[in-house]
Amino acid sequence: MSRWAPNTRARLESAALDLFVQNGYEETTVAQITDRAGVNRATFFRHFADKREVLFGGEDLLAELFADGVRAAPPDSTLIDCLHAALAAAGVAMTPQQRIMAAQRVLVVAANTEVQERGLLKHTRTARSISAALRTRGMDELTARLGAEVGMLAFTIALERWMAADNDAPFRAHAAAALNDLRKRTAALDPQRS
Amino acid sequence: MSRWAPNTRARLESAALDLFVQNGYEETTVAQITDRAGVNRATFFRHFADKREVLFGGEDLLAELFADGVRAAPPDSTLIDCLHAALAAAGVAMTPQQRIMAAQRVLVVAANTEVQERGLLKHTRTARSISAALRTRGMDELTARLGAEVGMLAFTIALERWMAADNDAPFRAHAAAALNDLRKRTAALDPQRS
Repeated sequence: MSRWAPNTRARLESAALDLFVQNGYEETTVAQITDRAGVNRATFFRHFADKREVLFGGEDLLAELFADGVRAAPPDSTLIDCLHAALAAAGVAMTPQQRIMAAQRVLVVAANTEVQERGLLKHTRTARSISAALRTRGMDELTARLGAEVGMLAFTIALERWMAADNDAPFRAHAAAALNDLRKRTAALDPQRS
Repeated sequence: MSRWAPNTRARLESAALDLFVQNGYEETTVAQITDRAGVNRATFFRHFADKREVLFGGEDLLAELFADGVRAAPPDSTLIDCLHAALAAAGVAMTPQQRIMAAQRVLVVAANTEVQERGLLKHTRTARSISAALRTRGMDELTARLGAEVGMLAFTIALERWMAADNDAPFRAHAAAALNDLRKRTAALDPQRS
């Protein structure tokens, strides 16, 4: 257990992931998580509705950061500019500790369909948060939904590359590169545009 | 119960949706579904792993149809051509009976998070099936993943419009229009392309 963990919530997340990876998700109880984190049961449920939420609570923060990034982009920003702003804003949450937890999360999710399903629900809600923020900028519904899907795909690809990287380049660098790589490929969706 | 239902599987789906909408998803038992469809319990489980699957079993067929459409597209097809081919192939499954069931499914999914999660898992697997088919055509991984997301978004939008339409235009027409609408909006993702 990390005695120096910055806050209770992160300590609970980290303890849970350690146990899930070590003993399996199904086999781990909330009591074991709170024991390891050194907090009581009530504290756990103040932060998370259930055991599954401890894996994906960070997605709610991400959804807010993405939306904040979109809303704070300069007035003349294009769709792609807004997506870059969203990913840059989300980068704040992508700390080295998160990088370790992200790799643990992949292992847990791969081993459990129920957990995977909850992750997808969070993913969908995050996409909706991005498209809603794009709509507040006056973009039409289809543009906003297309932007949200491409933004989420860029985020997913950046996360994969960040976890696999053998260097400590920050998440922001991976995110900007992934979105740029996708931008170049949009030509294949509209080859006749001149 | 539709005595003229073309086959057992569709009869089970239709019976289940009627009951889910009428009495609630949680409240409906497999026994009630089989009673209404006029088949026995073993038959149900030959077609569906559990109660949730009866809602989304059609997604597995869709995933196959999409992938078949991509693979059968002419050799010189661009990404957007392949997506049009995938949606056209899926159109075969989108019968008037499916249109009624799709509207019922929306009601059931909206009322139940657990069900929604299963739907998202199926959605993700369908997207993977499209991207895998695009990869077999020699497209690089990012192009295939971008294509799969845009194809799935076009499908979702087409489904919404098909359900909301006050005419009997076939799904294929909505699908082609939705994909074309998204194509036009890709310019916002790469505004500097000349």
